[in-house]
Amino acid sequence: MTRVAVLGAGSWGTVLAAVLGDSGCRVALWARSPEAAARLQVERRDARAAPALVLPASVSPTAEVDVALDAAEIVLFVVPTGAMREVAGRAGPSISAGAMVVSCAKGFEPDSRLRMTEVLAAAAPALEGRITALSGPNLAGEIAEGHPAAAVVAGSNPEATLAVQAALSSTRLRLYTNGDVVGVEYGGALKNCIAIAAGVADGLAMGVNGRSALVARGLAEIARLGVAAGAQALTFSGLAGLGDLIATCTSPRSRNYQVGVNLAAGRSLPEIARLLGHVAEGVNTTAVARSLAADYHVRTPVIDGVYEVLYRQRPVQEVLHELMAGPPGDEFADLLGSGR
Amino acid sequence: MTRVAVLGAGSWGTVLAAVLGDSGCRVALWARSPEAAARLQVERRDARAAPALVLPASVSPTAEVDVALDAAEIVLFVVPTGAMREVAGRAGPSISAGAMVVSCAKGFEPDSRLRMTEVLAAAAPALEGRITALSGPNLAGEIAEGHPAAAVVAGSNPEATLAVQAALSSTRLRLYTNGDVVGVEYGGALKNCIAIAAGVADGLAMGVNGRSALVARGLAEIARLGVAAGAQALTFSGLAGLGDLIATCTSPRSRNYQVGVNLAAGRSLPEIARLLGHVAEGVNTTAVARSLAADYHVRTPVIDGVYEVLYRQRPVQEVLHELMAGPPGDEFADLLGSGR
Repeated sequence: MTRVAVLGAGSWGTVLAAVLGDSGCRVALWARSPEAAARLQVERRDARAAPALVLPASVSPTAEVDVALDAAEIVLFVVPTGAMREVAGRAGPSISAGAMVVSCAKGFEPDSRLRMTEVLAAAAPALEGRITALSGPNLAGEIAEGHPAAAVVAGSNPEATLAVQAALSSTRLRLYTNGDVVGVEYGGALKNCIAIAAGVADGLAMGVNGRSALVARGLAEIARLGVAAGAQALTFSGLAGLGDLIATCTSPRSRNYQVGVNLAAGRSLPEIARLLGHVAEGVNTTAVARSLAADYHVRTPVIDGVYEVLYRQRPVQEVLHELMAGPPGDEFADLLGSGR
Repeated sequence: MTRVAVLGAGSWGTVLAAVLGDSGCRVALWARSPEAAARLQVERRDARAAPALVLPASVSPTAEVDVALDAAEIVLFVVPTGAMREVAGRAGPSISAGAMVVSCAKGFEPDSRLRMTEVLAAAAPALEGRITALSGPNLAGEIAEGHPAAAVVAGSNPEATLAVQAALSSTRLRLYTNGDVVGVEYGGALKNCIAIAAGVADGLAMGVNGRSALVARGLAEIARLGVAAGAQALTFSGLAGLGDLIATCTSPRSRNYQVGVNLAAGRSLPEIARLLGHVAEGVNTTAVARSLAADYHVRTPVIDGVYEVLYRQRPVQEVLHELMAGPPGDEFADLLGSGR
C-alpha cells in the first residue's frame, strides 16, 4: 500500500487524492486552512470543486504538512504556481529521504519565469533527482465522474518517473513516462494561453474551422518556444502537448477557456476574476510566455494577441482581425528560418 | 478576373464556387447530372448541402465538362475519391495547357491506394507539374455561413502552389502554401479515420479527457504513417494535419464523426449509410490506411481499432477497452524504435 501525500486540496488535488485512494494508495490530503481540512474530514467531499466525488476511507485530510508527509513515498504538489515555492520550502525538510516528488501545477513562477520542477528544486535542493511533473488532458471534473484519463509523468531521472508511474497508475489514470520534462512543462503551461484564445474565438462565434486553425497555429508557437528552451519537438505531439491543448480548448469546463469567453463578451480581467472566483493560470502564463518569446527570439503571434487583450485592454475583435489579416505565405516559413 | 472551373457540385464544391465567385473569380460549376445543374441555374442554391448560401451571379452551373473547362485558368476537382479517376480522365484532355489543377478530395483510391494528386497525374499525364492539393479545417457549412477559414495549397512545384494561392485567396479563405504534398494529403485523408474514433468516444460519453488522448494518439499514428510514406513530420502540426483533425473530431457537422457516433449507438455500417445518406470517406480510408500501415510496418492501434469495428463487426466497447488497456510505457517508445 503506497503512502502518498497530496499537498493542496483544490479541485485537482482533491480528485487526485480520491482516485489514488480508490486505487489502493493510502493518501494524506493536505489543505492549507484547518477549516477546509476539518470540512473534508467530516463531509468527505468538496461540493464546489467536485460534487460527484466522495473521498474514500483511505484518504485522510489534514492541515498539518508534517502529518501529511509522514512516511509518504510519493509527494504530489497540487498548488497554484504562485504558491509552489512557499509550499515546497515548508514541506521540503519533512519529505522522507527516498520519497519521489511530483509537480501537478501547470505554469511558471511569475518573476523568475522558472518551471514548476525548477521551483521545487530551488526551494528544496535536497529533492534533486527525485522531482517529476505530471501533465496531460486531465479535466478534474471528468475524472471525478469516473471517466478514465491518461497523463504523462516526466522527469530527467528514469528511476523517479518509473517509480511514480508504478505507484500512481490505475485504470482511471493511465500514466506514460517521458524523459522530456522541459517539453512536458512547457506544453502544460502554454496551452493555457491558447485556451484563452480559443475561448475568445468561441465567444465571438468564429466557428470550428477558425478555432481549429487558431489552435493549430497555437501549438506551433508552443512547440517553437519549447524547443528554444530545450524541449523535444515530439513531446508537443503527445498527451501533455496536443492532448492537453485539445481538451483545454474544447471543453467549457476549462478555466482558461472561460476567461477567453468572458473577454469576448467585453468583460475586463478584474470583472472576470470576480465572476469566475479565481485568476486562471493562463493569465500569468501569457505574460511569462511573451517575455520568454522575446528572449528566445521566437515569433508567437497568438500568445502576443492574448497578451494585448489581457494586459493592454485592446479590443478582442481588433486583435483577432489582425491575427487573420496579413498575407499568408508558406505555412512553415517562420519555422524554417525565412522570417515570416 | 480569374476563370475557375469547379468540378463537382456537392456541398464542398458548391461552397467553394460561391466563395470564389464572391471574391472576384468567374466560376463554372460542373454538376454531373443535368438536372442538378439546371436546378442550380434556376434556384442559385443547394438547400440540402448549404442552406445559408446563395450562388453569386459570377457562378455558372453547367452539366457540360467542356463548357466548365473553357478558358479555365484554375481547375478544382471536388469529387468523391472514388470518382476522381473517371472525372480526371474525362476532364483532362479539355484542360487548357497553362491551367493549374487542384484536388479538393481527401482520401485514397481504394485498390491502387494512390493519393488523389497521384490519381490526377495517372489519369491525365499532361497535367504533370501543375497538380496541387487543397486541404485544411474547412467544414463547408461554416464557410457557407460566412465564417473565415484557412487552408493549405500543397504541391511539389512552387509555381503551381503560388499561382493557386494567388488566384483563390480571399478574406474568407486564407491560403498558405506547403511543398509537402504527401504530408498534406495523408493528413487530410487519415484524419477521417481518427474522426470516426472520436465520434465513437463521444457516442460512448467517454469524456473530453479520453477523446483528447485518443485524438493525440491518433495524430501520432497519422504522422508516423505519413513519414513512412515520405511526408515531412512538421506538416502534421499544421492546418492540414492537426488543424483539420481538431475540426473534424470536435464538430458534429463532420460526416466521419457522425459515422462514429452511430457506430457507438450499435448501428451497422449499411444502416449508417442509409441513415446519413452517404458513405463517409473515412470508411474506405480506414481500410487503405490499415493496408499501408502493414506494408510500412507502422503501428496504428487507433486506426486498427476503427477497422475492427467497421469491417469485422467487433463491438465498439470491446475495441475501446482494448485500446485503453495494456501497460502504458514510455510515451514515445513506439516512435523511438523500442517496439512498444
